[in-house]
Amino acid sequence: MLSKLDLPKDLKKLNLKQEEALCAEIRDMILRTVAENGGHLSSNLGTVELSVALHKVFDSPKDKIVFDVGHQSYAHKLLTGRYGEFKTLRQKDGISGFTRPSESEHDSNVSGHSSNSISVALGIAQAMKLSHDNHHAVAVIGDGAMTGGLAFEGLNNAGRSGCNIIVILNYNEMSISKNIGGIATYLSELRTQDGYRRIKLRAKKVLGAIPVVGKGIYGVLSASKDSLKEKLLHSTMFEDFGFEFIGPVDGHNLEKLEHAFELAKDIGGPVLIQVNTVKGKGYAPAEAEPGEYHGVTGFDLKTGKKPPVEESFPDVFGKELARLARDDERIIGITAAMKYGVGLNHFNDGLKERLFDVGIAEEHAVSFAAGLAEMGKIPVFAVYSSFLQRSYDELIHDVSIQNLHIVLAIFNAGIVGTDGETHQGLFDIPFLTTIPNVTIYSPSGYDEMKDCLKKALYEDGGIVCIRMPKGGDCGLEPVTDGERLTERGSDRLIISYGRESKESETAAEQLGIDSLRLTRIFPLQNETLDIIKKYKKAYIFEECSKDGSLGEKLAARLDNIDRTAIEGFVPTMQCREALDLYSLTAEKIVKKIGSDK
Amino acid sequence: MLSKLDLPKDLKKLNLKQEEALCAEIRDMILRTVAENGGHLSSNLGTVELSVALHKVFDSPKDKIVFDVGHQSYAHKLLTGRYGEFKTLRQKDGISGFTRPSESEHDSNVSGHSSNSISVALGIAQAMKLSHDNHHAVAVIGDGAMTGGLAFEGLNNAGRSGCNIIVILNYNEMSISKNIGGIATYLSELRTQDGYRRIKLRAKKVLGAIPVVGKGIYGVLSASKDSLKEKLLHSTMFEDFGFEFIGPVDGHNLEKLEHAFELAKDIGGPVLIQVNTVKGKGYAPAEAEPGEYHGVTGFDLKTGKKPPVEESFPDVFGKELARLARDDERIIGITAAMKYGVGLNHFNDGLKERLFDVGIAEEHAVSFAAGLAEMGKIPVFAVYSSFLQRSYDELIHDVSIQNLHIVLAIFNAGIVGTDGETHQGLFDIPFLTTIPNVTIYSPSGYDEMKDCLKKALYEDGGIVCIRMPKGGDCGLEPVTDGERLTERGSDRLIISYGRESKESETAAEQLGIDSLRLTRIFPLQNETLDIIKKYKKAYIFEECSKDGSLGEKLAARLDNIDRTAIEGFVPTMQCREALDLYSLTAEKIVKKIGSDK
Repeated sequence: MLSKLDLPKDLKKLNLKQEEALCAEIRDMILRTVAENGGHLSSNLGTVELSVALHKVFDSPKDKIVFDVGHQSYAHKLLTGRYGEFKTLRQKDGISGFTRPSESEHDSNVSGHSSNSISVALGIAQAMKLSHDNHHAVAVIGDGAMTGGLAFEGLNNAGRSGCNIIVILNYNEMSISKNIGGIATYLSELRTQDGYRRIKLRAKKVLGAIPVVGKGIYGVLSASKDSLKEKLLHSTMFEDFGFEFIGPVDGHNLEKLEHAFELAKDIGGPVLIQVNTVKGKGYAPAEAEPGEYHGVTGFDLKTGKKPPVEESFPDVFGKELARLARDDERIIGITAAMKYGVGLNHFNDGLKERLFDVGIAEEHAVSFAAGLAEMGKIPVFAVYSSFLQRSYDELIHDVSIQNLHIVLAIFNAGIVGTDGETHQGLFDIPFLTTIPNVTIYSPSGYDEMKDCLKKALYEDGGIVCIRMPKGGDCGLEPVTDGERLTERGSDRLIISYGRESKESETAAEQLGIDSLRLTRIFPLQNETLDIIKKYKKAYIFEECSKDGSLGEKLAARLDNIDRTAIEGFVPTMQCREALDLYSLTAEKIVKKIGSDK
Repeated sequence: MLSKLDLPKDLKKLNLKQEEALCAEIRDMILRTVAENGGHLSSNLGTVELSVALHKVFDSPKDKIVFDVGHQSYAHKLLTGRYGEFKTLRQKDGISGFTRPSESEHDSNVSGHSSNSISVALGIAQAMKLSHDNHHAVAVIGDGAMTGGLAFEGLNNAGRSGCNIIVILNYNEMSISKNIGGIATYLSELRTQDGYRRIKLRAKKVLGAIPVVGKGIYGVLSASKDSLKEKLLHSTMFEDFGFEFIGPVDGHNLEKLEHAFELAKDIGGPVLIQVNTVKGKGYAPAEAEPGEYHGVTGFDLKTGKKPPVEESFPDVFGKELARLARDDERIIGITAAMKYGVGLNHFNDGLKERLFDVGIAEEHAVSFAAGLAEMGKIPVFAVYSSFLQRSYDELIHDVSIQNLHIVLAIFNAGIVGTDGETHQGLFDIPFLTTIPNVTIYSPSGYDEMKDCLKKALYEDGGIVCIRMPKGGDCGLEPVTDGERLTERGSDRLIISYGRESKESETAAEQLGIDSLRLTRIFPLQNETLDIIKKYKKAYIFEECSKDGSLGEKLAARLDNIDRTAIEGFVPTMQCREALDLYSLTAEKIVKKIGSDK
C-alpha cells in the first residue's frame, strides 16, 4: 500500500482494516530500514498508529504537526511522500532521522533537542489565530521531554492562549533513561486512571443526583471560590494550566485515537490528550528491552541481535569516575536522562546515592551542581555537547560569577555523524570560552582523558570541562603533560587537539613537518604561544564552528596562524564523510599544506 | 535596635512586639536608603516580616537561605550584620543590591537572574543529606519567577528528593510586569483560598462523619487508585510534585509566618509554603503603585515624587516599533515579563493582540518566535542582554538551523551600572557571534537605531540583533549607511560601535587620528577589513567580555589590531566608574594611545 497510495491524501479514503494493514507495512518498513541503517527503533515502533491517526484526522501541511525530539517521526515520514527515499534514512543526502522542513512541507520544525514542541506549536497556532486561519497546530511530546523546563513554559503560555493548539502527550513510561521526579510520578499515576473521562462524567451525575449531600460538601469548601464539583471535573495538572484534558487513550487503537483527535478538534482551543503507547510495539525484542533498542547502529532482524558494542569514551570515563568516587565521597555524578549515554551507569552499588538523574533538565543540572559545589562537593555533570547549550546562562550566573568548582564531562564533542545538524558538538568550544573561569581539556584517548579527569577534579578550579568525541580512543601515544611538540626540523607546524590529533599528526608525519598536540586547550598558555610563534606558519584543523574556535583565538594573538574549521551546520552523514567534506582528514590536510609552499 | 543588636543571633531573644518594632526600623532604613541611592523598593518592603521570621526560625548560615532574583534581600542584609555599611547600597565597593556570597556568609548564592533558587537550594539540601547534616535549605521565590522553566525543573526534582528543602512562594500577584499564563491564574486561585489548610481538615472531618455518602462518592472513583479524600487532601499542583503544602500564610503577620516555618521544619522533607505579601508594604505611594516603585533611581521620601524619567532606548524603540507595526501586521512584539523595561508598553490600542508577554520564560520566547516566523510573521523579541543568555540553545536549534527570520531587540547591552555582575550585558556579542545566520547592529543613538530596525525587519534574514546600551542616545551625528570613516590623515585608527563610539570619537578628535564607527558590526565585511588594514595600527575599545569580543574577531583576521575589552565580571558601580576602571573613557583612551607612539 505504501508504494501505491498518494499519502497523506489517500489515507482519508481508507477504512479501519486498511489502516491497520498500513500500520503493519509501516512497522515492517521501519524495522527493515533501521536494522540496515541504524536509527531510533523503540520510539518509532511506538508511534505508528498515533501517526496514522494524526494524518487521518488532521490535514497536513495546513494543520501543522510539531514533533518533539523527532526520533518518533519515521511513520510520519512514510505517510508524507517519503516512502521511496526512506531506504536512505540517516545517510548522506538522504532522509534525516529527525524532522527537517528542508526535507518536506509536512515537517513543521527542526527537531532533535527536547521539550520545544509546545512553544513552537504555540507560535504557529498564534500566527494562525492572528491570520483568522482555523487550522490546528499539534505538538507530539513524550513524557521524558515533559520534564524539561521549556515544555513547562510552553504549557504555561499555551493553556490560556485561546489558540487551536493540541498537545499529544505520548506517554510510554520512559525517556532514554527512566525519568525521575515529581512530574514522572504524577504522569504515571494519571496513566493508571483508565477511563478517566468516563469517571468524571459519572462523578458529575452522582453529585447532581444527591443535591443535599452535594450541598453539604460544597459547604465544606464554601470559604473558597473552589467547589468540589470543580475539583472533580478539573483535576489534572494540565487543566490547572487551562487545557481541556482527554485521556488516557490507548495509543495502539486506531479507532480510539481518531475519536480522541476528532473530539479535540471539535472542542477547539488548547487541548491535551494523553496517549499511552508501548515502546518497541510489534517487535518482541524491542518491547522486552526498549532501552536497548532506543538508538541502534543496526541489528539482525530475525534474532534481534546487535553488533557487539565497542569500547567508547562514556564507558571508560564512567568506570574511571566511579573508581575515583569510591575513594572520594565528595564526587557526585549528574546526568540529564542519559545515564547510559554518558557512562554514569557505572555509579552503582555504593555509589547510587551520589548519582542524580535530573530528567531532561540541563539548566537545573548546572544550578543544582552549583548548590552542591557551594557545600564542598565536586559535582560532575556528564552531558552531550549539543545539549549543554541549554545551560549557558546557568554556567555564567550560578557557577562562574562565584568561581565555583564543577566538572563538565562533555561527550559527542565534534562531529557526531548520522544524527545530523541538531546533534553535532560544534559549539561547545565557542560558547564555553566566552565564560570567565573556564578550563577546557580535549583528550584524544582514554589515558589522556584519565589524566585530564584527575586534574579537573583535584588541580583546577572553576568550571573544568573535559570534551570527548563520539566513539573511542583514536590510538595515539598519550600526552599527559598538557602538550607535546614533535619536532622534525620544519618551519611549519600543525596544532591539534582531541580526535583531530590523529588526522593532524598523521599528516604532519607524511609532510615531515612539526606537530603540537594540546590536551589542555583553554585558556591559552603563554608557553604554548611562545612555541607556536617561532614557526613561519602554524596550521590548525578543528571539528568546531569557525566563529569562536580555538584557531580564531590563536589567530587573534599570533600572526602566523592558518585555520580550518566548520562554517554553518553539518547535516546527516557518516563522521568520516563529514571530516572529508570539511577538509579535516589526514589526506585533505596533506593536500592543503603540501600545495601551500 | 538595628545598631545595637548582634544579628541574626540576638533575634532569637526578641518577643513579638520587639520584632514588630524591628520590622518598622528595617522598613525605615530601606526607605531612606533607596530614596537616596536608588534600588528595588516595592519587593523589599514586601518581605520585611518574611525575612525577620526566617532568621528567627532558621539558623543562618547553617541553614541556607537562597533568594531568587535577590531584589527582595535588603531586610535579610540588615538582619545579617550589614546595617553599618547599608548606606553604601549599590555603590562602588558597597553593599550589592542582590545576594553575593563574597559579601557575607549569610548570602548562600549569587542572585540576579530568575527562577534558579529551587535548583540551587536542592543542590545545597542534597549535599546536607549526603553529609548527614539535618539543617535546611530554604528557597525564597516570587510568583513571577515561578513562570520560568528552570523553577519547574527545580520543583520537579525537589518534590521527590526526600531532602530538607523548604520553598517559600512569595505570592504578591505581580512580577515586574503583570505575569500571564496558566500558572499565574492557578496561583491567583490558590491565593483566594483563605485558610486552605483549615478547609482541608474540615473536609477530612466531614467526609469521615458521613461514611455512607463518603463511600458512595468513593465508589464513583473506585475504578482508579485515586480517592476523593486524596483529591481533597492533596489538591495543589505542588502536592502533585511531591511537596507538603502549607498556606496561604499572611506574609505580614510575624506570628503566623513563624508558626508556618516551624511547622515546615517539623514536617521535614520538601515543603512548599505559600506566603501572601503586599508589594511596597508600609509606604503608601509604593503600595498604591508597586510597579512604579519596583526599581527606582531615587525619590523624595515625603512625597514619593521621583525624578523625571529621561528619554531612553526602550521608550524610543518601542514607539518606533509600534509605529511600524501599525503599517505591517506581520510584526509581533514579545517580552519576557518586562513590557515597560523594553518599551513594548507602546503596543497598545489596536496592537494589543500582537503583544505577547510570555512571563519570565526567555527560552519559550525564542521557540515561540520560531513558530511565528515559520508562518511568515516577523517576531521581535525585546529583552535585556543578560537575560537573553537563557535562550542560547533555542536560538541555535529552533531559529538558526532553519535560518528563520526573527529580530532581537537587546537592551542593557554593555555596562549597566549599579545592578552589578549579574546584569551586565557583556556576553551578547561573544555568544551571538558563535551562532550561524546572525547579524548584529549596535547603534549609538536613536536615529541609527531606527535605521537598523528598518534593515532588521526588511533587509536582513536570519537572526537580526539590535543591541542598545542602558540609557539614551549618546549624542553623535548618526551613521545610517553601516559605517563612517572620519579621516584626519593619520596612520592610526580607532574603531568603535554603540555607546563607546562617543568615547572613541572624542578621543580620536583630541588625538588627531582617524576614527571608524560601525553600526552593523557582525558579520565582519571585507570592505570594512580593507579600510582597517590600511592603517599602521587600529585600536578598538569595547564594553564587552574580551574572549569572543569583536576586537578578537578583528585581530584574528588582521595583524594591526590593538584591543581593549573587559576581563571577568564587572561588580556594582556607576557606569562611568566602570568605564574608567576598564580604561574605556575618552580620557583613558587618549592617555593610552597618546603614550603608544
